[in-house]
Amino acid sequence: MPTVTRLLDDIAEVGRDPGTGGYTRLAYDGPELVLREWFVGEAVRRGLDCQADRNGNLWAWQGDPDADGPGVVSGSHLDSVVDGGAYDGPLGVTSAFAALDLLSERGVRPARPFGIVAFADEEGARFGIACAGSRLLTGVLAPERARTLRDRGGTSMAEAMRAAGHDPSGIGRDDEALHRIGSYVELHIEQGRGLVDVGAPVGVGTAIWPHGRWRLTFTGAADHAGTTRMEDRRDPMLTYAMTALAANKQARLRGARATFGRLEVTPNGTNAIPSQVKAWLDARAADQATLDALVADVHRQAGERAGRDGTTLAVEAESLSPLVELPADLRDRIGRLLGDAPQLPTGAGHDAGILATAGVPAAMLFVRNPTGVSHAPAEHADDADCIAGVGALARVLADLLASPAP
Amino acid sequence: MPTVTRLLDDIAEVGRDPGTGGYTRLAYDGPELVLREWFVGEAVRRGLDCQADRNGNLWAWQGDPDADGPGVVSGSHLDSVVDGGAYDGPLGVTSAFAALDLLSERGVRPARPFGIVAFADEEGARFGIACAGSRLLTGVLAPERARTLRDRGGTSMAEAMRAAGHDPSGIGRDDEALHRIGSYVELHIEQGRGLVDVGAPVGVGTAIWPHGRWRLTFTGAADHAGTTRMEDRRDPMLTYAMTALAANKQARLRGARATFGRLEVTPNGTNAIPSQVKAWLDARAADQATLDALVADVHRQAGERAGRDGTTLAVEAESLSPLVELPADLRDRIGRLLGDAPQLPTGAGHDAGILATAGVPAAMLFVRNPTGVSHAPAEHADDADCIAGVGALARVLADLLASPAP
Repeated sequence: MPTVTRLLDDIAEVGRDPGTGGYTRLAYDGPELVLREWFVGEAVRRGLDCQADRNGNLWAWQGDPDADGPGVVSGSHLDSVVDGGAYDGPLGVTSAFAALDLLSERGVRPARPFGIVAFADEEGARFGIACAGSRLLTGVLAPERARTLRDRGGTSMAEAMRAAGHDPSGIGRDDEALHRIGSYVELHIEQGRGLVDVGAPVGVGTAIWPHGRWRLTFTGAADHAGTTRMEDRRDPMLTYAMTALAANKQARLRGARATFGRLEVTPNGTNAIPSQVKAWLDARAADQATLDALVADVHRQAGERAGRDGTTLAVEAESLSPLVELPADLRDRIGRLLGDAPQLPTGAGHDAGILATAGVPAAMLFVRNPTGVSHAPAEHADDADCIAGVGALARVLADLLASPAP
Repeated sequence: MPTVTRLLDDIAEVGRDPGTGGYTRLAYDGPELVLREWFVGEAVRRGLDCQADRNGNLWAWQGDPDADGPGVVSGSHLDSVVDGGAYDGPLGVTSAFAALDLLSERGVRPARPFGIVAFADEEGARFGIACAGSRLLTGVLAPERARTLRDRGGTSMAEAMRAAGHDPSGIGRDDEALHRIGSYVELHIEQGRGLVDVGAPVGVGTAIWPHGRWRLTFTGAADHAGTTRMEDRRDPMLTYAMTALAANKQARLRGARATFGRLEVTPNGTNAIPSQVKAWLDARAADQATLDALVADVHRQAGERAGRDGTTLAVEAESLSPLVELPADLRDRIGRLLGDAPQLPTGAGHDAGILATAGVPAAMLFVRNPTGVSHAPAEHADDADCIAGVGALARVLADLLASPAP
């Protein structure tokens, strides 16, 4: 069995819901910690030096980037959304191990250090901030803010880190760790059908759409569902419902994306008009101006409806990610190596985008997703495409590793 | 301090959220069990025989209804919705104790037994079926169904009863217990502003609107919020949102009530299009035809929208309560006793309605609610109105207790 398939098989039961077939591997929670142990085991088996950095990102090094200069790094993340797929994250980590094995088998002797990384808390499914590990590493997420983020059970990120054996006092920008990354190549399952449309198993990333998450808090007045006349109500559910429909329409009109996928209703009782509805807007567009206009229109329409419903609206931006153009030099070099691999942007955020924004030469490879489904149990990549992905990744890594560190 | 005020004070901290000031006293859960202990203590202090019936309803008897014939019963319930008010339920129980004290002070010698009852699980906030205790008692809720109802944590009603020391194997219609109730008078805080509008502290119930709860399950397909084109989605949140707005509009048009107060979103992640939204519709109207038309229209509109969204809709009726006209004989007798007390219907279900449907002469007294707010922390009744309520209840009970059991 090819290495990447075998490695994915090895972890196929970790955090899997036997009912849905989906995976829930939240940052610093049980199944994700099992995967971290698995990562360390795979690293040790290959004779790599393995350690977590100050921000909880896991690194496995062949060679010493502190002594021998910045290395070539590949990897992705191990955490998932709630009831997500098997590939988003783990495919990049297992492919990095598989590519290393392939290079070893071929007797490639790297001229510089090679690292495999599993970034912490990429999905943000637990604490609400995507790419928290790479954002902390690069200093765009403030340590104080990160430590006090809380999950739905009230546990802070600091408490979760501590419970997982990681000291949260040292989190924050880590120039030493950053300096070790000469270049970063992240392989990821595609999360749309761009590669299906052009019939290619592997593609090269060009850009990450600007995107953000906003928490909209609609506040009204709790009251009895049976006895309160409709005209006496201040029902925040209605304001929310109109906003969800408005966001959909605005996104359609602009060829953009807007989603309300998460809600918290208080008190959430069948016979009680809610006092509050918290709703999270995820919005993305091909360019910043379109995204700004989309979000402004949604907030404006929500505010106007709140006025009519007698409710109030408070909006807080939880994360904002500007457009990331992946560095042209590295992308062009990879393009030449992979010949006719199509180049395409993505609407999904990635640690590669956070690193690129911080000035690290970062690139992405995408592996074809036959259905385009992602963040869901049905997420899938064919074995043959995964193997093609590892082959492409190994070609890119061999080329990058052939040049000594600058 | 008048008895009713003192008794309410005694339990004012039980199940109270210091943040909201609201109460969460779910059936067979900690705070409600504390209130049950409190009920037993108050009964014992007054020399009453206290016991739970087979269905978990608590009874305190002065005199022996098995030996001396059916008695006069007053009471209400001790459980609450999540973050509800202090009066809905406990005002009726404390008023029954206070009325008994008043009759004792006045040297009234009842010609028949007098009972005080606290019905189990009236709100249905834990297991989804309102008036579960009286529905079981009267046989309209099947024991097998009740035992397997589950709360949001997965605990069944049978397990919850057992954990609270109550044997669930004996639940079901209880003719012995029913036969002890010669007549039932439930005092309750009004849950609207009918008494405010006419400037009266106490009113007499005429009818309980037909009402029901329906669970609407909207199913679509989970997918990535950032990468899935709007036109490729099957997003059940949109179908739900339109349905919530449609229900509101249909209720307004008909002078009825429709509320979506409870939602469960799966997987409920910011960057995942939901696979499923479960939403609970609470609907009520002055007559059955209006209610039926309202609910049919909401379901039809939801189904049509589901067709357009590529989602599916499944509807399950969780509870259906037909119109209850409280028995005219008893209502007229109370009306004559209380002189100019206004008579009014209610949109809220009550154990009195369940008993009336089962053929028990049952009546209701309402105490003015200055804001009309109910099922919320702000629910309130002025002390003076509570005391007026106890006075009215004592007058009614004295009259009923003066006639020997038939």
